[in-house]
Amino acid sequence: MMFASDNAGPAAPELMQAVIAANEGPSMPYGNDPLTASVRARVREIFEAPSAEVFLVATGTAANALALGALVEPWQTVFCHRNAHIEEDECGAPEFYTGGAKLTLLEGDHAKIDPAGFARALTFTARAGVHNVQKGALSITQATELGAVYTPAEVRALADIARAEGLPVHMDGTRFSNAVARLGCTPAELTWKAGVDVLCLGASKCGAMAAEAVIFFDADEAKTWEFQLRRKRGGHLFSKMRYVAAQMDRWLADGLWLDLAGRANAAADRLAAGLGEGNLATLLHPVDANALFASLPRSAHQRLHGAGAKYYLWPFDQPLEGPGDEMLSCRLVCNWATSQAEVDAFLAAARG
Amino acid sequence: MMFASDNAGPAAPELMQAVIAANEGPSMPYGNDPLTASVRARVREIFEAPSAEVFLVATGTAANALALGALVEPWQTVFCHRNAHIEEDECGAPEFYTGGAKLTLLEGDHAKIDPAGFARALTFTARAGVHNVQKGALSITQATELGAVYTPAEVRALADIARAEGLPVHMDGTRFSNAVARLGCTPAELTWKAGVDVLCLGASKCGAMAAEAVIFFDADEAKTWEFQLRRKRGGHLFSKMRYVAAQMDRWLADGLWLDLAGRANAAADRLAAGLGEGNLATLLHPVDANALFASLPRSAHQRLHGAGAKYYLWPFDQPLEGPGDEMLSCRLVCNWATSQAEVDAFLAAARG
Amino acid sequence: MMFASDNAGPAAPELMQAVIAANEGPSMPYGNDPLTASVRARVREIFEAPSAEVFLVATGTAANALALGALVEPWQTVFCHRNAHIEEDECGAPEFYTGGAKLTLLEGDHAKIDPAGFARALTFTARAGVHNVQKGALSITQATELGAVYTPAEVRALADIARAEGLPVHMDGTRFSNAVARLGCTPAELTWKAGVDVLCLGASKCGAMAAEAVIFFDADEAKTWEFQLRRKRGGHLFSKMRYVAAQMDRWLADGLWLDLAGRANAAADRLAAGLGEGNLATLLHPVDANALFASLPRSAHQRLHGAGAKYYLWPFDQPLEGPGDEMLSCRLVCNWATSQAEVDAFLAAARG
Amino acid sequence: MMFASDNAGPAAPELMQAVIAANEGPSMPYGNDPLTASVRARVREIFEAPSAEVFLVATGTAANALALGALVEPWQTVFCHRNAHIEEDECGAPEFYTGGAKLTLLEGDHAKIDPAGFARALTFTARAGVHNVQKGALSITQATELGAVYTPAEVRALADIARAEGLPVHMDGTRFSNAVARLGCTPAELTWKAGVDVLCLGASKCGAMAAEAVIFFDADEAKTWEFQLRRKRGGHLFSKMRYVAAQMDRWLADGLWLDLAGRANAAADRLAAGLGEGNLATLLHPVDANALFASLPRSAHQRLHGAGAKYYLWPFDQPLEGPGDEMLSCRLVCNWATSQAEVDAFLAAARG
Repeated sequence: MMFASDNAGPAAPELMQAVIAANEGPSMPYGNDPLTASVRARVREIFEAPSAEVFLVATGTAANALALGALVEPWQTVFCHRNAHIEEDECGAPEFYTGGAKLTLLEGDHAKIDPAGFARALTFTARAGVHNVQKGALSITQATELGAVYTPAEVRALADIARAEGLPVHMDGTRFSNAVARLGCTPAELTWKAGVDVLCLGASKCGAMAAEAVIFFDADEAKTWEFQLRRKRGGHLFSKMRYVAAQMDRWLADGLWLDLAGRANAAADRLAAGLGEGNLATLLHPVDANALFASLPRSAHQRLHGAGAKYYLWPFDQPLEGPGDEMLSCRLVCNWATSQAEVDAFLAAARG
Repeated sequence: MMFASDNAGPAAPELMQAVIAANEGPSMPYGNDPLTASVRARVREIFEAPSAEVFLVATGTAANALALGALVEPWQTVFCHRNAHIEEDECGAPEFYTGGAKLTLLEGDHAKIDPAGFARALTFTARAGVHNVQKGALSITQATELGAVYTPAEVRALADIARAEGLPVHMDGTRFSNAVARLGCTPAELTWKAGVDVLCLGASKCGAMAAEAVIFFDADEAKTWEFQLRRKRGGHLFSKMRYVAAQMDRWLADGLWLDLAGRANAAADRLAAGLGEGNLATLLHPVDANALFASLPRSAHQRLHGAGAKYYLWPFDQPLEGPGDEMLSCRLVCNWATSQAEVDAFLAAARG
Repeated sequence: MMFASDNAGPAAPELMQAVIAANEGPSMPYGNDPLTASVRARVREIFEAPSAEVFLVATGTAANALALGALVEPWQTVFCHRNAHIEEDECGAPEFYTGGAKLTLLEGDHAKIDPAGFARALTFTARAGVHNVQKGALSITQATELGAVYTPAEVRALADIARAEGLPVHMDGTRFSNAVARLGCTPAELTWKAGVDVLCLGASKCGAMAAEAVIFFDADEAKTWEFQLRRKRGGHLFSKMRYVAAQMDRWLADGLWLDLAGRANAAADRLAAGLGEGNLATLLHPVDANALFASLPRSAHQRLHGAGAKYYLWPFDQPLEGPGDEMLSCRLVCNWATSQAEVDAFLAAARG
Repeated sequence: MMFASDNAGPAAPELMQAVIAANEGPSMPYGNDPLTASVRARVREIFEAPSAEVFLVATGTAANALALGALVEPWQTVFCHRNAHIEEDECGAPEFYTGGAKLTLLEGDHAKIDPAGFARALTFTARAGVHNVQKGALSITQATELGAVYTPAEVRALADIARAEGLPVHMDGTRFSNAVARLGCTPAELTWKAGVDVLCLGASKCGAMAAEAVIFFDADEAKTWEFQLRRKRGGHLFSKMRYVAAQMDRWLADGLWLDLAGRANAAADRLAAGLGEGNLATLLHPVDANALFASLPRSAHQRLHGAGAKYYLWPFDQPLEGPGDEMLSCRLVCNWATSQAEVDAFLAAARG
């Protein structure tokens, strides 16, 4: 019963086989290998973006921070939701890679940025003279840290505001596959067609060991060369790139990435439905992707912990032990390998 | 005939099997897994360093730059050889991770630091007042970028000078395994017993897909916690750490790391011996590890390239095409999988 | 009628004379001069802090950013008010000098930090593991950007919370002199006795051309040496320090600093009183120091602009021209040289 | 007998009077004042550069580091002489302001860069792929740290090499006035006409209290706006700019800057001539500007120290006390206020 994080799940066997297959004989290092080229071709096809440039790294934090470093100057600010991963969970990596840019924190339900609030923040920052940090970029997390998903129209609404100010749009797509699998739209509709300039496409949380693609939909050569220098300078250029590429290549082949994401989403749906029966729990956010945020009575949490379920009370500082049986909120994350049996065992333990 | 880099070699099958084995079921992320714990235990045992702390990353540049970031302040300088990887091949990663420290370049044959020159450089820097960059750390590359190896006594000679000034000693051990395999000394003798404070132990060039260990032999808790924050902030904390750990764990088990390194060294020896026969080539540096630097006639290089041999003229800017048959220098790197047949084919092509 | 900023005021003639006097003959550079030593002695005496260390720079932004750089690590955050100068008006200088630390923005009336909100923010940040930016320091602005002043008890209430978490306390004292002149307490009571570790004491806005002192009340030698390196590295170590020192030395002598600040405060009081008569304006914040924030009818603003009064509508983006006569808010800042006649002329123009 | 540094000299009375005059009444802050505008106009006229942009700061280190920050990226390198002030005496300020760029050290007599060596260094760096720090800019120090001066032809020779590689050319003109005064050429001939893109023009060492101008001869608006943000972010934007501007404005008026520089040069000439008489000393470098480097017998140094002469043995670590009477080298710097009497007293003391 592992619901602590999608990071806790295994890699998909198809990807492991691809890595084994990639291990035959020598191969030129640093991305000068056929698998890296294949990933580029797949991304261009899947995203209907023939001039997209694609760079591989191995962690989502590296992808986000390197992308933001390429988009903003040190004296600029990145507009993002208060709960964005880049704000809350990367130990300041965006600040490090941008050379000290700010993050301007926006509000919005379910960790989705409220467009009106974004527009207001831009107006306020618009006064910016030489004393002020300048407007830099917009960063959207898809799916959000609270398990919600932006529709293409919602992405476009935000991107339009950004672009009207000349700001590039970054998408933290750590769980982009979950969003596409849920929405049923095309990857292009959810990204460049909606105004996204750079997508960090994450496979690590959904079937890979460690593979992330930074996709520039329409960058010039100088910009992508600069990105490559930043990647190397950050220590994120893999000598034996073929093993990262093999994962991403297989993940993107034959729709496997959406299949895996769909499985995680389905497990979350089953869990949500089960928690909803008999008012076992209150769902705190829409279950658009593979994560649930729910409130359960303390007694239910105690039973679950006793039964060995792994997940986090959210926020962390709620005491599992205590006199009353009040509701405590928690985060439950499914991954591609979460089984129906695992979900059902969780529900049974919660019910007691 | 792949002699371009040890990076071009495959991963050892034992490590691939270990990665597959690590993929069973869920596992807590970010290094809170049994394999990461096992790596720590192995390092402590192999290095006879029960209080060593061990942190895993996936590239040698990340390992070096993070380690140096932990050792020096932005206003300090790292003493290293002019040909060190941290100076020549990391696109300024040490400057990035240290927040802008300098590298003071030292001389010495075969890319080994000359102790007298190091002492002189310290004397010169000793005048350092508030206007001057301050002394920060010593960095030793083992084996060197020119294929030479420091003996324990040579390491100690340099480390003693550094320590007399209060400077910590970093070892870039990308090819540390090749050095130990050659010298036959213990890992401890070549590191902390000789005065090394932090070792970046590389497996990526010698049998792993991507696995590097940063080993602090005697750091306090504040320092190693800071290192972990730096690692996360740099985007180098892997969520699914088990796959990196699995490689390093297997590499260190049962002496495999030295076995693999020994194979690469033996291939280099065979190549060196063959090149020496009949004065086919002039060796430019001692062949202490797995790399050779040799001069061959242009005609030999042309034959080799025609036969499909992969390697670099060194320096790069020598023209392969040209009227005369002058000697052109090159770098030839063997890896653990370089076969005798491959070496012999190379020699045959060189002879014509 | 200059009310745009206290920066717009002249330097006090006493300070100009001191600078002229300092220009006699040669003097050792970089602070190795008698005037710099005299400043240190004066600060120690005035602040009853015999072990305080004092470093001079020439801008308030430099003072704040260098001080914060010395107090926090790149992966930490500075708690400050949302309206603090370090957040709003330094173009990211704190981020630059800290190597990319965050600022965590707190709320509170009149730009004074609400202690309960600070405590809550600390609790939230308390969960900080390796993924999170760590708690770094508290920064208090005295007087605030909205013209309010913290009492010694209010400073202590905030500092106690910070210190309970092990956080150092920084005070942006650009208008510290105005606060002391208003409160009538001792400088020590408002700083180290209330828990402040580092004070940036500004003279530039109150009678100097350009002189700011960074005062460490109880720093060890390593810390203050590091600060000196940071100052030099930031380009803020003046070769001809005597001219900066001469200003600060004279400013601190014979209570001149409090005299000048008191004059600015008195001008603000007179202006506030005048605006209060006949409900000419609504004061938006307490007038504790030398700045007023007030709402006046658009017609009054138009008259004032017509009469040549210099000040800013606050926020900037309110249109001076418009159909109705609604209230527009503005900022009015007095300086030590603001005359009664200037205030009275302003009031007369406002009344029309 | 002050020969320790030109920094030790006083400010010229004309500049002090200008500062006093600038103190009349209020003035808009941050450079929005008439004196700052006047400086811009004077620079444009004196340098025959009607589109030049001019920004004032107060220290030479700030000027150099901010200018280099605007010219190079963090992953690039600045080519400069091994003895350049930016390498030896700024505590890593260039590294700080560039975000971690390197300095590639070049050789050449009298701290003048040897063009052939520069060309070689570029060739070597030309191989630069993604692993390598990229070529960034050339920095020339005029006059050099060893008192020599580049002719316009020498500047052009270096700049031509740089420009052929697309590199911008920075000139550290801390003692540019001394060079122009010596050469008798026009300021334009020694800068933009010879290929210089950015000049840091220093007045602080030659008659000002603290005033330096960063001059972009042909920068676009985006670049100079960025420079202004960098200056503010570095804490180098003065609120009361008029006082810095007043100094620079007066310095540049009526040829005063060249008059003052000429006086310092003449004092150095007199000193050199005197030391040459009777082989009292050996001059180590040409005396092109206001500094001498000379070897004198230890006994002469002892007499001079006894007589109260202030100067540095150069390098610092030569022992003034010792058994023999060997030659010890020293640096002697004259400033605009160095009198003939002072020089003659020095000579007399040296002679004994």
